[in-house]
Amino acid sequence: GAGADNDLYINQAIVFIEDAIQYRSINHRVDSKSLWIYRWYYSRTCQWILSLTITVILALAFIEEPSSLTVTSDVRYRLPAWNPPCGLTESIELLCFLVFVLDVSVKSYLIGWKEFWKNKWLMAYILILIVSLADWIVSLSFFCRESVRIRRILRPFFLLQNSSMMKKTLKSINSTLPEMASVVLLLAVHLSLFTMFAMLLFARTKDNQQDKEWVVYFRNLPDSLTSLLVLLTTANNPDVMIPAYSKNRAYSIFFILFTVLGNLFLMNLLTAIIYNQFRGYLLKSVQSSLFRRRLGIRAAFEVLSSLKETPVSAQQSCVSVGALLQVLQKVEMDSRCKQAIMRSLKMCSCDQLSAAQFQKLFEELDKDAIKQHPPSPEYQSHFMQKMQFAFGHPYFGYLGNVVALANIISICVVLVMDADKQLSERDDFFLGAINCFFILYYLLEMLLKILAMGLKRYLSYPSNRFDGLLTVILLILEIATFAVYGFPHPGWRPEFMGLLSLWDMVRLVNMLIVFRFLRIIPNMKFMALVVTTLLDLVKNLRAFAGILLVVFYAFAITGIMLFKGAVVPLGNTRYIGKKPNAFVFSLWVNNFLKKKKMISWCSAHFQAEVIYCLLYVLSVHLICRWAKIYFVAWWLISSVIWVNLFVALLLENFIHKWDRRCQRESLSDIEYQRTVELMFRDVLEEPTEEELMEKLHQHPHLQLCR
Amino acid sequence: GAGADNDLYINQAIVFIEDAIQYRSINHRVDSKSLWIYRWYYSRTCQWILSLTITVILALAFIEEPSSLTVTSDVRYRLPAWNPPCGLTESIELLCFLVFVLDVSVKSYLIGWKEFWKNKWLMAYILILIVSLADWIVSLSFFCRESVRIRRILRPFFLLQNSSMMKKTLKSINSTLPEMASVVLLLAVHLSLFTMFAMLLFARTKDNQQDKEWVVYFRNLPDSLTSLLVLLTTANNPDVMIPAYSKNRAYSIFFILFTVLGNLFLMNLLTAIIYNQFRGYLLKSVQSSLFRRRLGIRAAFEVLSSLKETPVSAQQSCVSVGALLQVLQKVEMDSRCKQAIMRSLKMCSCDQLSAAQFQKLFEELDKDAIKQHPPSPEYQSHFMQKMQFAFGHPYFGYLGNVVALANIISICVVLVMDADKQLSERDDFFLGAINCFFILYYLLEMLLKILAMGLKRYLSYPSNRFDGLLTVILLILEIATFAVYGFPHPGWRPEFMGLLSLWDMVRLVNMLIVFRFLRIIPNMKFMALVVTTLLDLVKNLRAFAGILLVVFYAFAITGIMLFKGAVVPLGNTRYIGKKPNAFVFSLWVNNFLKKKKMISWCSAHFQAEVIYCLLYVLSVHLICRWAKIYFVAWWLISSVIWVNLFVALLLENFIHKWDRRCQRESLSDIEYQRTVELMFRDVLEEPTEEELMEKLHQHPHLQLCR
Repeated sequence: GAGADNDLYINQAIVFIEDAIQYRSINHRVDSKSLWIYRWYYSRTCQWILSLTITVILALAFIEEPSSLTVTSDVRYRLPAWNPPCGLTESIELLCFLVFVLDVSVKSYLIGWKEFWKNKWLMAYILILIVSLADWIVSLSFFCRESVRIRRILRPFFLLQNSSMMKKTLKSINSTLPEMASVVLLLAVHLSLFTMFAMLLFARTKDNQQDKEWVVYFRNLPDSLTSLLVLLTTANNPDVMIPAYSKNRAYSIFFILFTVLGNLFLMNLLTAIIYNQFRGYLLKSVQSSLFRRRLGIRAAFEVLSSLKETPVSAQQSCVSVGALLQVLQKVEMDSRCKQAIMRSLKMCSCDQLSAAQFQKLFEELDKDAIKQHPPSPEYQSHFMQKMQFAFGHPYFGYLGNVVALANIISICVVLVMDADKQLSERDDFFLGAINCFFILYYLLEMLLKILAMGLKRYLSYPSNRFDGLLTVILLILEIATFAVYGFPHPGWRPEFMGLLSLWDMVRLVNMLIVFRFLRIIPNMKFMALVVTTLLDLVKNLRAFAGILLVVFYAFAITGIMLFKGAVVPLGNTRYIGKKPNAFVFSLWVNNFLKKKKMISWCSAHFQAEVIYCLLYVLSVHLICRWAKIYFVAWWLISSVIWVNLFVALLLENFIHKWDRRCQRESLSDIEYQRTVELMFRDVLEEPTEEELMEKLHQHPHLQLCR
Repeated sequence: GAGADNDLYINQAIVFIEDAIQYRSINHRVDSKSLWIYRWYYSRTCQWILSLTITVILALAFIEEPSSLTVTSDVRYRLPAWNPPCGLTESIELLCFLVFVLDVSVKSYLIGWKEFWKNKWLMAYILILIVSLADWIVSLSFFCRESVRIRRILRPFFLLQNSSMMKKTLKSINSTLPEMASVVLLLAVHLSLFTMFAMLLFARTKDNQQDKEWVVYFRNLPDSLTSLLVLLTTANNPDVMIPAYSKNRAYSIFFILFTVLGNLFLMNLLTAIIYNQFRGYLLKSVQSSLFRRRLGIRAAFEVLSSLKETPVSAQQSCVSVGALLQVLQKVEMDSRCKQAIMRSLKMCSCDQLSAAQFQKLFEELDKDAIKQHPPSPEYQSHFMQKMQFAFGHPYFGYLGNVVALANIISICVVLVMDADKQLSERDDFFLGAINCFFILYYLLEMLLKILAMGLKRYLSYPSNRFDGLLTVILLILEIATFAVYGFPHPGWRPEFMGLLSLWDMVRLVNMLIVFRFLRIIPNMKFMALVVTTLLDLVKNLRAFAGILLVVFYAFAITGIMLFKGAVVPLGNTRYIGKKPNAFVFSLWVNNFLKKKKMISWCSAHFQAEVIYCLLYVLSVHLICRWAKIYFVAWWLISSVIWVNLFVALLLENFIHKWDRRCQRESLSDIEYQRTVELMFRDVLEEPTEEELMEKLHQHPHLQLCR
């Protein structure tokens, strides 16, 4: 009937508006049941469960069999890591897989059969789930003793497919790949030509004394290639040229040419290309987000305009304010936005909204959130007003900064004086007394500021929250210290008592004081600019960080699989085989290629037990070929491509910010919440009505009346 | 009289137009005598003598007393360097100083007394000349045995002041300094806060086993600062964190935070700032060049318009075509431009030129030089026409590339096969025979191409010139080989004869063949783009390279003076004290700070004679404080600032080029000669008439009639 139809239209409008808010595609089923499933699927609870599942399945690597999640990394002191019994991690995995199966089936159902075949991500999702489940069955049937577990490398895919921003970023990176490949090809040509030159230049001679260069670096093709590849990372510079250089200075020309061409020109060209290419693609992806939002709003307008209660005017379709209010009440969105839209809807005198008016109402969504600080309390007493003026004044804040600086300097002086003292000579009295005084000052400052600004206004500034929290923690620590060790007095150096020794307590307090010093940042214009740029960057970098995490994870798992059991220097302890700690792992791997410091690396671990070191290096040499390819791939991805992407994003962000600096200075009291969408707002193009309608008519499930 | 006046005006016009061509300032004296001196001073001979003098005085460092210009850098094999007798280099220096005195007096005279006081460069020039001469007298009175020679550090100034482009670039860099200083300050704050954290975190503990981190890296304030500064260059990563990491994995968070904040954010922020700032300033300096050009042309117009022969029309001043032709004939300028201007002057039907027409005539100067290739010869015979079609076709060039690639691959295969062979087992027959065949093919290719294109057209392509030259050299080498060693046959491995052994000859031929392979570059679109970008960059980089040379020179000389006699590991041979070889020096110094590889460095030289090494390290430690400051300064300037400047310029150049790629593809047969001025042409603003006239009326020596 008409009522049911009306309900359906209202529900469709709600979902379309929610799609617009979340930048989601509107190409899903729009019948009542599907809409209910759709809202349920995108409800907070469901999405939270999905995120949790992804986190759990990724975190499994830390407790699975070749894991090294222990406090110390030193194999000599380390307790054997806890090995979960066979079936424990596997059953958690199965649970996760079931959630993913549910996820993929709901998603596939919602977009419909036709769309499913166009969606490569969904198909890959299903494929990966099938492979993972098959691998899981194999794993269980071997009682967890199989050596290769493909499903582990595939795990990061679940993270990737769940974030539309990451998928977009990956698409952008993908489009940049041909250009990057050209430069990498150029690098390869550069490398191979210079390798041939080097092999001809540093050939074996009759005089064994004279061909050190040949023996060490250019003995054969793989050696020469490696030497020059490492020179490209500047790691073996100038070692690689020393033997030739001591024979004849002119040989240095070869190395200088290679470094200047390869390192200075080609590597930086990569930065330029990535910056140039990526700039465009980021803008494009933001543009398509904007299109999705406008399309969602427009779709909502269209379905609302076909409500039966609307009088069918001849020329223009329009929407009644009442229906929109009904929809808005049910839409889940930011309450600030909702209130703003309601307000402007009430202020609008008309009863019917045209498409343009409708679209304009929702422009509130694109606006910056402007944060207003609550007002200071108004005191009646004249004395209190004076107090308020004095302690609410910026100069009082500056005084606080000066005191914090004095505190830092005093700590620094004590540290320098105590640097070479024996532990038994040290006296904590001086530092204890000073810190006690300073912390009292901080407490006083906080209380006076609260008095002047009122608690609400005080807490509305992030710098005050930071300041206040640290002051409270410092106070608690100081009270705890006094409670356990008594007040400071000369020779205040009691033995270990309670949870932490006095020395540890004092260190902790000092560290917190150093940390608290960061409150000066907002007071220095340039620093504030830099820090806000960095914070924006972190926001915009989430997608990148996700992709980096995916790559890290895949590389770490591959590394574990490749080098499992290959390195057995001390007894039977696998070393590289036990590093899913991806961050540290990457640092090492990077360094591995970069500095060939294998010996120093293992000597740091095994305390220069030379025999083990040699064993270690030998076993590394056995797996040398695989390791080389693996490490070069890692270097290219993590060091070359990712760092350049990062630089490109930073350049983009910073230059935008810098241009607006003057503009922003006038609005110093207003804090913006900037996103990547807002950064590009000036250059974005609004989609035209025709584009929107054409797209709407292509919708696979929605039949518009006209 | 009027004739003399007319002559003066003509001469003024000539000089102003020459000023415009060379982007020189027109603020010089304009009386007849001064104009003669001015033209003489800026004549090719005079400028060439000046450049030669600068080169000579800079090159003196290579033969002056602590010099190491010997073939080998190995102190054990090295013959003692030739020490010029006292008075030789000094008298050359005096000659140079006299030239500079002449230079500065002419320059000062020409710009006039009033302008002189405004020109800081000239005053600094005089000051430096006085200081140098005083130092020279001191030097002679000590019979060349004084230890400190200030004038050596001052020498690069002479290079700097002679190039207006370098002065401009220096000004740009100077304007960027405040921003850079902010980031460097931020880096310093970052470093000092983390140093304090580190000192509190890695303090001495009771258990001596446990505080390895403290002992090695964070013993006191200078040590901690150095450790973290070196970590900022990623050189001691991950060594610095290994002891702490093996105690507790959580310590790695500290190092990761430090590296991410310092290395990834702050260092790249420096790139962003320099890019952002420098972009504007480069444009600005190009804009001021354009203004100088327009001003010179306008000044020429004004003086020509006050010629007596010109009819004084009431409204507009104008210039007779005859006078301009007279001026043009005497102006020294590019003959292509002169012809183009003459041609358009003749095509212009009018007898008088207005200011706008006059300006428009000289716009030829701003245009790209378009190079037309001479036509191919036209053959009568049908056979020859077919030949011409076949061998003038691009596919014939591609075939040549394929053959060159085949040659490269064959050399590579032989190299790989011969890699581990003993010298006595080697047989040069195979390579000799192959190369003989390939070189014959190259000769044939060259001759056929000349046949098809004609010699003139063949030579008009740079790639053909490169190709032909190498082919001829290869042919000569091959003929010489056959003349000395006979034709290749199995077991073709004769002993050393003549200038080069057969093996050396073959190596040389192979190297040239590898080098010749670069001819493929223009055939690959992306490569060609990259290479032209690089070539443009090199052109635009001359000013930067000059400034870098100045900094290099000053640092090298300072290093020689600071570390003279400080390092005496082997007998009495000063080592660091003997390195004016600035390039290699910088590589080492960079590495010195970066990798603390002092031991490996000296072991490379002194063949691991450990005692000497220890002596060496010890003596370095004695001068450690000075060395540290010196090296940190060097790292900041060469590695951080200069590389970032380079990246900024590359980004700028590349992005401009990339945007025009499509545009250029259509004009593939036309070669442009791009300069930094042309790169920015789209965004340059033409100066208005009012600006020009205002500037002309401010001219200190020129009195305009109206």
